[in-house]
Amino acid sequence: GPGLAKFLEELRGVVEANQARRKPKVPKGARDFLPEQMAIRERAFAAITGVFKRHGAVSIDTPVFELRETLMGKYGEDSKLIYDLADQGGEILSLRYDLTVPFARFVAVQGITNIKRYHIGKVYRRDQPQMTRGRFREFFQCDFDIAGSYSPMVPDAEVVAVLVEILTELRLGQFEVKLNHRGLLDAMLAIAGVPAQKFRPICSAIDKLDKEPWEVVKAEMVNDKGLPEAVADTIGQFVVLRGEPMALLARLSAPDHPLAQHPQGKAALDDLKIFFEMLQAMGRLGPVTLDLSLARGLDYYTGVIYEAVLQGAQVGSIAAGGRYDRLVGMFSGKDVPAVGVSIGIERVFAIMEAQMRERAAAAGKPLRAIETEVLVGSIGSGLQQRRMGLCAELWGAGIKAEFGYKPNPKMADNLGYCHENQVPFMVLFGEDEVARRVVKIKDMDAHAEEEVPVEELVPALKAKLAAREARL
Amino acid sequence: GPGLAKFLEELRGVVEANQARRKPKVPKGARDFLPEQMAIRERAFAAITGVFKRHGAVSIDTPVFELRETLMGKYGEDSKLIYDLADQGGEILSLRYDLTVPFARFVAVQGITNIKRYHIGKVYRRDQPQMTRGRFREFFQCDFDIAGSYSPMVPDAEVVAVLVEILTELRLGQFEVKLNHRGLLDAMLAIAGVPAQKFRPICSAIDKLDKEPWEVVKAEMVNDKGLPEAVADTIGQFVVLRGEPMALLARLSAPDHPLAQHPQGKAALDDLKIFFEMLQAMGRLGPVTLDLSLARGLDYYTGVIYEAVLQGAQVGSIAAGGRYDRLVGMFSGKDVPAVGVSIGIERVFAIMEAQMRERAAAAGKPLRAIETEVLVGSIGSGLQQRRMGLCAELWGAGIKAEFGYKPNPKMADNLGYCHENQVPFMVLFGEDEVARRVVKIKDMDAHAEEEVPVEELVPALKAKLAAREARL
Repeated sequence: GPGLAKFLEELRGVVEANQARRKPKVPKGARDFLPEQMAIRERAFAAITGVFKRHGAVSIDTPVFELRETLMGKYGEDSKLIYDLADQGGEILSLRYDLTVPFARFVAVQGITNIKRYHIGKVYRRDQPQMTRGRFREFFQCDFDIAGSYSPMVPDAEVVAVLVEILTELRLGQFEVKLNHRGLLDAMLAIAGVPAQKFRPICSAIDKLDKEPWEVVKAEMVNDKGLPEAVADTIGQFVVLRGEPMALLARLSAPDHPLAQHPQGKAALDDLKIFFEMLQAMGRLGPVTLDLSLARGLDYYTGVIYEAVLQGAQVGSIAAGGRYDRLVGMFSGKDVPAVGVSIGIERVFAIMEAQMRERAAAAGKPLRAIETEVLVGSIGSGLQQRRMGLCAELWGAGIKAEFGYKPNPKMADNLGYCHENQVPFMVLFGEDEVARRVVKIKDMDAHAEEEVPVEELVPALKAKLAAREARL
Repeated sequence: GPGLAKFLEELRGVVEANQARRKPKVPKGARDFLPEQMAIRERAFAAITGVFKRHGAVSIDTPVFELRETLMGKYGEDSKLIYDLADQGGEILSLRYDLTVPFARFVAVQGITNIKRYHIGKVYRRDQPQMTRGRFREFFQCDFDIAGSYSPMVPDAEVVAVLVEILTELRLGQFEVKLNHRGLLDAMLAIAGVPAQKFRPICSAIDKLDKEPWEVVKAEMVNDKGLPEAVADTIGQFVVLRGEPMALLARLSAPDHPLAQHPQGKAALDDLKIFFEMLQAMGRLGPVTLDLSLARGLDYYTGVIYEAVLQGAQVGSIAAGGRYDRLVGMFSGKDVPAVGVSIGIERVFAIMEAQMRERAAAAGKPLRAIETEVLVGSIGSGLQQRRMGLCAELWGAGIKAEFGYKPNPKMADNLGYCHENQVPFMVLFGEDEVARRVVKIKDMDAHAEEEVPVEELVPALKAKLAAREARL
């Protein structure tokens, strides 16, 4: 009756009022980026895209969601981590899980036969987040891939060269690129006597060797995956093989070595020989290690696979990739061979942020988020519109300038703002300067002051900014 | 029985095979960005963020999804266009509908009292897409907002100044910024005799005046919204008022004008006087028109409102915004006044793309997506690794270079690649040059060729690139 309706109405009011009072929050596993973090992010992106562009790469973009069927059957067990959109009528959609499958879909849909592209974008995984360890539900990936039919190993070598250049330029510390070949892995398992249908589960056991000792991995192979102990022991003799690429390759390629005698193994060794020679020709072989224990989890790899790790850091791999020749064909029915690398940019941000905070603390200066070059200040009241006008002249000349939002900011306000935000110059004037048609330019670093006619302000500032730029 | 199970198994096989054969596609209303489009997008973003940075703005980022309750109750009827995520356990999430509500949530959650920030990101609307008219389900917004308690109209004036600068710099053609004040609208409706509870529906009728003639809008007010005809006619006398800001303001501020006699109207006129003076001081008043028919739909505006339109173009508004002093308070219970503008960057892309295609066609050149400066080519076979090595030297010097993926590319391949991608220089060598330790540098524009010692290649190229840069 009307009593109930009235009660429900009142109840709704209470619920809504509570909602309004409830503290708003960021969804679990996702983050806001604050201005200082954005400044770091921008710097990292600029450094990375700089390398991509130096190698003639183009950029593409794809939607943040894909048809659910596009993502299905590509990620194995990890499919359960995919975010689905609600069925609100129309297509069934999911948020992208990585940038590789959308790239393969892009190549197929756009009918592309060859492309060298990079893509920086957010991906989504409904995983248990560990914010302090850099595992998020929404995070950036930064991918570089080369698709197309080319001479053997040429694009592969350029992808790894790009990876080495990026990690060198970012100065995150000493790093190592562990490298293996799917053909070597398969040959090794076949030689050891692993039945073909167990290749994948055994590979995923081997994949744990970077975290677990051999005994634990062997136990998994024998107890959980039903491998005879002798077979596991043979695998154990292979996966300890790691070292300088050329030397280890020579050992494995000796005519009496079982890998060299196995057809798939021989083909992989031949591939790797060309590959290492090309990396050497580009001077990018230094950080590479041939490591037979590297066995990336994803099913779609068909050739070289690699993973970069920072020495000493306990952050796991910072980049990973490989050759995947049959992913595009899953969409179009026509294979376009491809090779690529995905850089774990969140870890890069975290390391850069720590480095920059350390440096800022050592210099006794806060991290800088704005790029303002000049603060226009005034002495006395009623000069705000004149400050605005001067600023507009500076903006017109491409100078980054602010006029201060207080009507009559005190000198202490201005100095505080310049110090806190490392604004290098202040332009100052009062009634007296207005009457004489001059302004003062204060050099905040040099603690020097100069008076110039108003009409010479722009060239004077430009000269000072250029001189400062040259000094830094 | 087992017969049915077998049949179902076979059926599943057929369905899956069909799925695999089904042509993959991009979700409805979403798009892939191709390399040429990305180059344009990047250029537009660089121009726009350049203006933001010149004004001392910082950048922030927020997740692409928010708690559903964060978005609820902010968009009126348009809430039905919000994309919801499936309930997979845990929080109930939705994709963001714009960048303004996430910004207000950000300010509230991060406990910010003042910030001048921009944000470029994708937003999502489950609207009927009209791809050819630039209406998408996933599209970019580019927002600039100033939050904080400041002197009246100072941030408002800077936001509109930024808008004017951006539209000027992007060279999209002549534009107009229509401007009104929520206080003037409310006063006008009160004076006309509209009851307070009808302010919003009447405003949304007025909002249609840019597309419909007055008679149609009046009919809606009278027939659909139950306004007496005399009341509608009084509104009709107000909404025709538009013109040069200072002159129209003077007319409306005359002591005997009903708007000047209404307290809310008087306050709005006083606001606008300061506002226009500040814009004039910054030399950014030119494109602004005071227009009493402008009545932005969104509920949350509390002060100035504005909308930019391109003259002659039938694309609707290209940017819009206003002051919203109570949105942050909806989250934190503590108001942080704010003013901002959102630029319809998709329309900007579309216009820039058309302009650039036109220019490229006029010059007989394709649009350029790569930035490669040098193609390293060779004459004769077996020189690929040497090309790679030379490229690596150029990369090390910051020069954008490619080595060609064919083992022995023909001269015609190289020339074709340079022409198609407007690569300005080619480095060339054969066995003879290798023996003499020299290379040839071909200037593609000047059709000139020069031979230099290998060790002088980098400085020689740098000089040529700098000279070319200066020439362009």
